[in-house]
Amino acid sequence: MSQNRVNTLFGAPDTLREKGIPLYIQVKKSILSAIAEGRVTGGDTLPPERDLATYLDVSRVTVRRAIDELIKDEVLTQRQGAGTFVSERVEQPLNHLRSFTEVMEARGKTITSKWLDRSLGMPHEEECKALKLAPDQEVVRFYRLRFADGKPMALELATIPSCYIINPFAMEGSLYDLLEQQGCRPVRALQRLRAVSIDEQRANLLDIPQLSAALYIERTGINHEGTHVEFTRSWFPGDSYDFVAEIRDTL
Amino acid sequence: MSQNRVNTLFGAPDTLREKGIPLYIQVKKSILSAIAEGRVTGGDTLPPERDLATYLDVSRVTVRRAIDELIKDEVLTQRQGAGTFVSERVEQPLNHLRSFTEVMEARGKTITSKWLDRSLGMPHEEECKALKLAPDQEVVRFYRLRFADGKPMALELATIPSCYIINPFAMEGSLYDLLEQQGCRPVRALQRLRAVSIDEQRANLLDIPQLSAALYIERTGINHEGTHVEFTRSWFPGDSYDFVAEIRDTL
Repeated sequence: MSQNRVNTLFGAPDTLREKGIPLYIQVKKSILSAIAEGRVTGGDTLPPERDLATYLDVSRVTVRRAIDELIKDEVLTQRQGAGTFVSERVEQPLNHLRSFTEVMEARGKTITSKWLDRSLGMPHEEECKALKLAPDQEVVRFYRLRFADGKPMALELATIPSCYIINPFAMEGSLYDLLEQQGCRPVRALQRLRAVSIDEQRANLLDIPQLSAALYIERTGINHEGTHVEFTRSWFPGDSYDFVAEIRDTL
Repeated sequence: MSQNRVNTLFGAPDTLREKGIPLYIQVKKSILSAIAEGRVTGGDTLPPERDLATYLDVSRVTVRRAIDELIKDEVLTQRQGAGTFVSERVEQPLNHLRSFTEVMEARGKTITSKWLDRSLGMPHEEECKALKLAPDQEVVRFYRLRFADGKPMALELATIPSCYIINPFAMEGSLYDLLEQQGCRPVRALQRLRAVSIDEQRANLLDIPQLSAALYIERTGINHEGTHVEFTRSWFPGDSYDFVAEIRDTL
């Protein structure tokens, strides 16, 4: 870490001697200001603790305490072996019907996907229920790990009645684009959200610790004719997303 | 556990010998049917594993495997020392502006609260930001543990500019009722949701394991004049809630 980088981030160190305010709070404030003023942004690493301590002329214990509190507040994120980052949270609108691709592209992110499974078969019980299918109506399943700028951001398991997908093994990119081409893009959806502790397999795929908090969303997409065309289950790492919505009183 | 109860729940045991279907799957199906047909409902305990095993004439390992899978699917919940329950999830509408009291009363639940803290003081930085206050504009804080039918269901920390609360130490029951009496009930709100791992202190209050998944919701309530009157942070145990909403395509 060059002295220059710390300088850029934290300005003149003499600002850190306000009377009557505990030093670790002043360190917290310095870090928060650096973020608020855009000197470090989401995904950036913080300088190492020892450099911060030297530069700000405080003990490492003080720096550590400030950083611990900011991690607790989710302003900072620590990844083992990779240092301390400014938390990067995607704000995802909850009251618009958008696919993963659309949300991320609107943020200028580069989307990639890893196929985990594609299958064609008979629907399971909950798929029948969500899609209002008979047990012998074939479905297609797309199970993908979705990345934004190379970082795993969502696990997505979409089930679609096979009549809406001409060739499931040719599907790439946005599912909503594909459904739109077939004239059956969902125009509304029923959405169900739940906080879950992620299991080991999904944790490994998303590159997050086992049992960490994730948001699980079930979405049933309905097309303009009122037909249930999509049943998608997604898992989003809790440390990467804020879901935002404006709600109105409809008493 | 009386034989009668197991009988009521699971019917004639000879239904459990479908050819070609693994026994634990048949046990799972029996439990799922008992739930689907309302013979056991959310919050009910299951009979002990050994009684189920004897009655269904399968090994305890088989019963255990079926129950483990249903726990993983969140159909059942296990609480240490208290046995296995049918999961009870509250469906909370996400796109209507409702207070905790209103949501729970609509479900016929009895609401109680435990006061954790009431305070009157200067706003913190994030409260200033959310409520658009100057740092010297006094706020009232209400920190309560909310119960439905005696079960801890939410931790709620509400911050209100003190000008809207005549006597904070007399406040009981629904905050929205109180704000309505003062003519400043929120008519819309900005809501931000996040899945979090609950910390030790909040876990103990909510009577859930430390680090289990919870839904954290920040709500900024705005009255008919466009004034920000409420900033509420709530923590909901992940195993107790589904947040549901209908969303529309607004391209």
